[in-house]
Amino acid sequence: MENHPFDLALRLLPLASDVYAGATTDAYWNMVGPFGGVLAATALNAVLQHPALLGAPISLTVNYAGQIAAGAFKLSATPRRTNRSTQHWLIELLQTNKMGVEEVMLTASAITATRRATWSSDDATLPTVSRPNNLPTVQPMGSVEWVKRYDMRFIEGMFPVEWDGKGDTSLSQLWVRETPPRAVDFCSLAAMADIFFPRVYLRRALRVPAGTVSMTVYFHADAAQLTQSGTGFLLGQARAQAFRNGFFDQTAQLWNEAGLLLATTHQIVYYKE
Amino acid sequence: MENHPFDLALRLLPLASDVYAGATTDAYWNMVGPFGGVLAATALNAVLQHPALLGAPISLTVNYAGQIAAGAFKLSATPRRTNRSTQHWLIELLQTNKMGVEEVMLTASAITATRRATWSSDDATLPTVSRPNNLPTVQPMGSVEWVKRYDMRFIEGMFPVEWDGKGDTSLSQLWVRETPPRAVDFCSLAAMADIFFPRVYLRRALRVPAGTVSMTVYFHADAAQLTQSGTGFLLGQARAQAFRNGFFDQTAQLWNEAGLLLATTHQIVYYKE
Repeated sequence: MENHPFDLALRLLPLASDVYAGATTDAYWNMVGPFGGVLAATALNAVLQHPALLGAPISLTVNYAGQIAAGAFKLSATPRRTNRSTQHWLIELLQTNKMGVEEVMLTASAITATRRATWSSDDATLPTVSRPNNLPTVQPMGSVEWVKRYDMRFIEGMFPVEWDGKGDTSLSQLWVRETPPRAVDFCSLAAMADIFFPRVYLRRALRVPAGTVSMTVYFHADAAQLTQSGTGFLLGQARAQAFRNGFFDQTAQLWNEAGLLLATTHQIVYYKE
Repeated sequence: MENHPFDLALRLLPLASDVYAGATTDAYWNMVGPFGGVLAATALNAVLQHPALLGAPISLTVNYAGQIAAGAFKLSATPRRTNRSTQHWLIELLQTNKMGVEEVMLTASAITATRRATWSSDDATLPTVSRPNNLPTVQPMGSVEWVKRYDMRFIEGMFPVEWDGKGDTSLSQLWVRETPPRAVDFCSLAAMADIFFPRVYLRRALRVPAGTVSMTVYFHADAAQLTQSGTGFLLGQARAQAFRNGFFDQTAQLWNEAGLLLATTHQIVYYKE
């Protein structure tokens, strides 16, 4: 899979202890910067490639601090504390601006851990929905490049066709997988946590400027459960709870086709007007 | 309010640029360390006291890295990036261990912002529940000190009385305010985001070791809306979505008595067995 566009986008070159070099790729370009999901995945990838890594991802929070330009960036990933079975990471993405000054473009934290088998229960169960093969592929925001890297099949809450300001719900449900297909792993799951177009578009049926400010992903699946998901579709479900004076939240779930809850995720998103 | 136990717990003394001195207080002691909510509030307080602060809290993520001991700690709060209307903060709590080594006990990030009035909507509305005056005060985990700092009035999902392993839901709803009453502000809201006892206790009706690993709070209210909430009760609602091999998540909301959604919050929590 080394030549899959997602793997190319995630490539990091070790520069020094805790520091990696990366670059944005056209394949995941959003409207004015890289797709936030691929940035989250790249931040996580620095942790996963780190020689001191303990365990697998449990939690990832990414704060989008500045507008990342096309081109090279530096990524630092530092284990701030390592316990017997958990490890706490700080990550920063730095980019040198036109004036030659290095600026913080993204900050993130991650927790990795070794898991043990325990009593388990998925309380949030897969909604009863049509299977992906029975649904058409659609491209919300079809003019945006990163959207073409995913096969999205909507059940509910499609990208509005009429921008008439008459929206009444923020709920979307869609099957999603990468195109070309790629087996799901922690990084692709982090990226797909950011697959949902801004809830404010849907809720208002109105297109206003909007961008994610912070995203958190909780990983419920371990590596074996991700492997079982293979290249199948994931069901993504997202809704907002509050839109208030410039910021709304998004709460979302990602299940695999077998109905296992792989991740739950949350965002706070800036919007204008 | 300077002598309210919550304000005493939050006290910070500036030590140097970006560095504060604080200490744990017996009034908010949990089973083996300080109440995580008061730690989150203290981390936020360092940001709010910082001379470079821009705007008010939008987002706070706190990662609980180590077992904090009773006594003094150092808190660093650094603005990593300041934009026109948003600011990104990194926070760390450090404590010197018995060997004289300074250790990272907590890492956090916060985003503050200046807000503008926009179209707004609370999609997650206050559940239809009994008013607080009609409900008895109960103390879940009554032997734990911090619980005594809150007046909790449960509607649903009380602390189990019989630990018979026969639980079937993780949903709690309760009215909560500080005792003695104290007007809600950003710090007390951050603390009350962590008011819910571990969902695994309720879901299983079984008491197993559990502790929050990471918590995120999204602040929907601005300072004026918090002021309007006064010393009234907040309705807290929490549930889990997945319990899986040592970690479960919690998703929660906090409304004021007038029904305004003040904050939404999420946790990932370690549990054993």
